[in-house]
Amino acid sequence: MKIAILGYGNLGRGVEAAIKQNPDTELFAVFTRRNPDTVKIHTENAKVLHIDNILDYKTQIDVLIICGGSATDLPVQTPEYVKYFNVIDSFDTHAKIPEHFENVDKNAQQSGKIGIISVGWDPGMFSLSRLYANAILPDGQDYTFWGKGVSQGHSDAIRRIEGVIDARQYTIPVPSAIESVKNGESPSLTTRQKHTRECFVVASDGADKARIEKEIVTMPNYFADYDTTVHFITMEEMKRDHQGLPHGGTVIRSGKTGFDNQNSAIIEYNLKLDSNPEFTSSVLVAYARAAYRLCLKGEKGCKTVFDIPPALLSADTPENLRKKLL
Amino acid sequence: MKIAILGYGNLGRGVEAAIKQNPDTELFAVFTRRNPDTVKIHTENAKVLHIDNILDYKTQIDVLIICGGSATDLPVQTPEYVKYFNVIDSFDTHAKIPEHFENVDKNAQQSGKIGIISVGWDPGMFSLSRLYANAILPDGQDYTFWGKGVSQGHSDAIRRIEGVIDARQYTIPVPSAIESVKNGESPSLTTRQKHTRECFVVASDGADKARIEKEIVTMPNYFADYDTTVHFITMEEMKRDHQGLPHGGTVIRSGKTGFDNQNSAIIEYNLKLDSNPEFTSSVLVAYARAAYRLCLKGEKGCKTVFDIPPALLSADTPENLRKKLL
Repeated sequence: MKIAILGYGNLGRGVEAAIKQNPDTELFAVFTRRNPDTVKIHTENAKVLHIDNILDYKTQIDVLIICGGSATDLPVQTPEYVKYFNVIDSFDTHAKIPEHFENVDKNAQQSGKIGIISVGWDPGMFSLSRLYANAILPDGQDYTFWGKGVSQGHSDAIRRIEGVIDARQYTIPVPSAIESVKNGESPSLTTRQKHTRECFVVASDGADKARIEKEIVTMPNYFADYDTTVHFITMEEMKRDHQGLPHGGTVIRSGKTGFDNQNSAIIEYNLKLDSNPEFTSSVLVAYARAAYRLCLKGEKGCKTVFDIPPALLSADTPENLRKKLL
Repeated sequence: MKIAILGYGNLGRGVEAAIKQNPDTELFAVFTRRNPDTVKIHTENAKVLHIDNILDYKTQIDVLIICGGSATDLPVQTPEYVKYFNVIDSFDTHAKIPEHFENVDKNAQQSGKIGIISVGWDPGMFSLSRLYANAILPDGQDYTFWGKGVSQGHSDAIRRIEGVIDARQYTIPVPSAIESVKNGESPSLTTRQKHTRECFVVASDGADKARIEKEIVTMPNYFADYDTTVHFITMEEMKRDHQGLPHGGTVIRSGKTGFDNQNSAIIEYNLKLDSNPEFTSSVLVAYARAAYRLCLKGEKGCKTVFDIPPALLSADTPENLRKKLL
């Protein structure tokens, strides 16, 4: 299966790494908006090409993995490229998924291609965990905790404050809240009771740190509803201690079984990731395999993780899967 | 959707309870090998009928959930009844799944019905967790820990010892082993290092407790490879403290991401169940919904949880699922 990557940032590099781990996949090319000569990739024998020429390779690419951002890239790119390719994206603006689905589906139905959207871990594996748990335990409550991990959106928000040179924000679930949920206590939790936020900030020389801290902790939507702590550190400390992009989290459904709902059942799915983009990329490549197989079967249209039979994700045969993993 | 239950033990009663929680499902009848007059069920307006008459109701039942045992019931019943009905079972003899699959598939292909086998939590949800995690992280190791929970097979083995009136065996994962796996240490663990076994035994008056204990802890296959503790208790204590059938466990895949496998990723799926049979039944009912929908689409043959698109398990519409759970 020949895979092409569109966009060579953290996610694109992660896809390249995941392709290396999957012997039935091969990186055909990386497509970029930059001058291809300036983009150096890890894989020998794979091309770097300019996005303007991508249609020249229509017949040579089995699946195109679109590694752009959800704000402005994917709403345009995924509906556009599904006209010519089987595509996968990691569109993660939850509220706009129905609209994105419609846009991709319309073009995919016409082109006869497959587009699988919102692939990754949330949306993605966390969504699957919620769906399975809700189907099994109709009587129950859902909880999602994120972290401990770096939130890039919140880090960016801090960087926009005057006097801030660099910043890293960690989202941290409140351990006692998770404990309560796992104990089947079905608590009602406010935003503040579920997560705390910890910020590491490099300020410019002479900047008013008290003002910066106040601007952070009172920032609406991002920080005002949370208990937020701010640490000022040096650029050396930032580079030494905060270069990774770890993340993860926990999805829990706390439900009841029995004719009188007398028994408790707790379903928990948990991820602990050194690299958020690399894990997302690993999910993308597994779903690229499914997209290719669906296309070979003659299916078309927009799909999500909810529509894909799990066996299609694996390189192994159905017989082996039943024998080894069932 | 009209569901019939075959066999009214713990599992059959659990299916009855799960049907009550799912408004789109209805219990049509319980079929039993016993005299139907002696079987009292919870659901008003549902029949209790003798298994010998089940074919009279062929056109009135959408899905038959077969709640027999894996040792002797299911290998016969599932291939037989898939000739006439869409069927679901919880066949859990892992080594014999390929053979069972073939037997069910042959008859289902001929009858045009759907048979979904090995539905529950292990095999079942645990298998799904293994499959997804293996597809996403090809470079890694799988771990399954069971418990804390009652093993009925091990409890039965103790009851067969001379001088034992009743017994309950709990399988308990070793906390330090789980910790090590969750920390990404990828340990190699022996059987003894993964689980301990705790036994509560009611002995008959004058029985030689030292002999009973020795027979338990040295029993091949069941206990000899484990650190086993034995507690002698009274029948009153047994009835007071050990009547539930709790179970659960944890599936973990510890893998690597990155071009040089430099980052760790841990995927964990965890269940904590007050009632093992009721949870298994809840999974069976969700897959009954999927079987019915697949049959309406014109599909046929034997399937497992690996083959079923997750959205088919939910009573909700695809649009709502994308909006609310993705």
